[in-house]
This record gives sequence, C-alpha cells and structure tokens, in this order.
Amino acid sequence: MSLQAVPREKRQGLIIVYTGNGKGKTTAALGMALRAVGYDWRILMVQFIKGDWMYGELESYQRLAPNLDLKRMGKGFVGIMGDQKPLEEHQEAARVALQYVKENMDKDYDLIILDEINVALKEGLVSVADVLELIKQKPPYLHLVLTGRYAPQEIIDAADLVTEMTEIKHPFQKGILAQPGVDY
Amino acid sequence: MSLQAVPREKRQGLIIVYTGNGKGKTTAALGMALRAVGYDWRILMVQFIKGDWMYGELESYQRLAPNLDLKRMGKGFVGIMGDQKPLEEHQEAARVALQYVKENMDKDYDLIILDEINVALKEGLVSVADVLELIKQKPPYLHLVLTGRYAPQEIIDAADLVTEMTEIKHPFQKGILAQPGVDY
Repeated sequence: MSLQAVPREKRQGLIIVYTGNGKGKTTAALGMALRAVGYDWRILMVQFIKGDWMYGELESYQRLAPNLDLKRMGKGFVGIMGDQKPLEEHQEAARVALQYVKENMDKDYDLIILDEINVALKEGLVSVADVLELIKQKPPYLHLVLTGRYAPQEIIDAADLVTEMTEIKHPFQKGILAQPGVDY
Repeated sequence: MSLQAVPREKRQGLIIVYTGNGKGKTTAALGMALRAVGYDWRILMVQFIKGDWMYGELESYQRLAPNLDLKRMGKGFVGIMGDQKPLEEHQEAARVALQYVKENMDKDYDLIILDEINVALKEGLVSVADVLELIKQKPPYLHLVLTGRYAPQEIIDAADLVTEMTEIKHPFQKGILAQPGVDY
C-alpha cells in the first residue's frame, strides 16, 4: 500500500543538482529514489560515467523494483582507472544516454536521475546546450536530478535546488582504502 | 541472492559525518542504507530529532525490510514548528535514543545511522562527551553515520569521512514550498 502522492498536475518538478568534490552525491540521489518509491513514483536512473564494476549496487537497486529503471550507459571513467577507450566511444555512450532520457522523459517517470552527468559535461562528452535543452523540454511535474562534481555554472543557473558536497575529511587521507557498503 | 560482503573481521568500520546547511544529509544516509542492503547488511537508523510527521518516508523504509530497523525516537523539532514541549522532554528522548544505540551497537548491525544527532548536540540534548564515548566503544567493523547540520569540531576530529553539504540554491528562494518525494 502506497501513500497517496500529490497528483502530477499539482506537482512542481524541480531541477536538483548535487555537485562538489565530497562523497554523497550519487548516494543522496539514491536516497531520493528510495524515498520516491514510498510514493510509488516511477524512477529512471541513467548512469553517464560509471562502468560495469559497481556490482555491489545492483542488488540494492533490486529493492526498488519495479519502480526503478536503471540504465547503465556510461563506459567507465574517462582516461583514468586504466581506461584506454577512445574519447569518441565515451562521447557516443553519453550521447546515446542523453537521447534515451530525451525520448523517455514523458513516459510515466516522476523522477529521473542523470548520474554523473556533470562529469560527462566537464569531459565534453555531452554539451551544456543539449542538457539545457533537455531541462527546458521536460514535463512540468518531472523532478530531474543531476549529479557529479564540476557542475557548470549554466546548469546551476538553470537549477532550483543545488547542494555542493565538500570533502572535509576523507579516509584515504588516513590510508583507508575504498570498501563495499561505503564507496560502492 | 546477496553479494558476498567483506567479512566483519576484515572490515574497517568508519565514522562518517554528513553535515552543513544544504539538503542531502539524511538522504545520503538513506542512500547508504539502500546500498548496504545490497550486501545484506543489517542497519539501525535512529532518528534523534524528527518527530512523527514524516509518514512519507515510512513506506520507503519498508523496502529495506528486514535489513533495516528504524527507531524514531526524537520528539520533533526543538522550539520551532509550533513545538511547545519542555526542553527536558527532548533531552530525555535523545538520551534514551543514545542509550538504545549504546546497548544495541554490538547486536549484529553493520551500519548504524544516528540521524540528526548533530542537531541534538547543538541543542544540548545529548553531550559531545557521550557521543565520543559511543564512538570509542563501537565494534571495529561497525560503520557509524552521524547526520545533521552543526557537527561540532570534536565530532569532525573523531570522524574518518566528513562531507559538508552546502546550500548553493534552494527552491524556497523562488517561493516553491516543500513537497513530498523531495523534502520528505
């Protein structure tokens, strides 16, 4: 049994940006997705950068079924973590991802998360103009979340809610490595 | 089927703080809880401040059953939102909550979230010394997340990972009211 959510025609869809160099951006988007299923919303999460190594999270996403559609379209980190793929391959993947969102954003979703799209913007995988166009075209009730460090000023200007996550202290500073449940 | 998590004896439990005036602190903790169920961890979330008006989130928490135990012990906001309760009542509730965590933190939990405890510290509902003592006594494998604005310096000093969420832009600035799915 789900709570009665506010009907779409009375909803004011927000542009929400989680940016900054601190941890918690994608995690907060994930928390929003979890909260949204409480209202029986439909959620689309598109990963623009992350590759196929985050198996740890997939099991979690199952808990949000059937409300969550997850599209893992990114080709992994660009130019780091041993990446040898030509930039064109990353660009093509990001372009396909953005096109997918454009074509599906009026298909019954209440919340769409563009995960790490700010990084895709920074790396030149997609253009700011294309993302601004998507924001402009979105259905009025739809909440759109854009995550990733380096959010460009134009995106911040277009957003309703922007939180900057700043790293004050990181366990790597103490030599503690990334670990499941915390980092992925 | 759950992923094999790192066994407890090989796990380095972290003290994680989400603080700052921006949105996303509790939401990020919620995202961590969701991720943690992917490893079939057991999670305890104790709300130190929030009262009984967040019905919207309860349905979401069901999705994390049976991994999540939620204890809503706070008596609502202190001195605002029409609160008329004497400070002692808030203090007693926060003290009971902290005691509950102390008595249960070795009871098979992998992740414990002390939600809004930084605000409880700021309001003097619990003492920094008591929270530092709890941190000191925690099992080594246990991850502890402390959320809420106003994290005191002593807590930051004791933490491994600290993210400050800063409000860059808020929809209230545009006159948009809080709404389900985004704010609660």
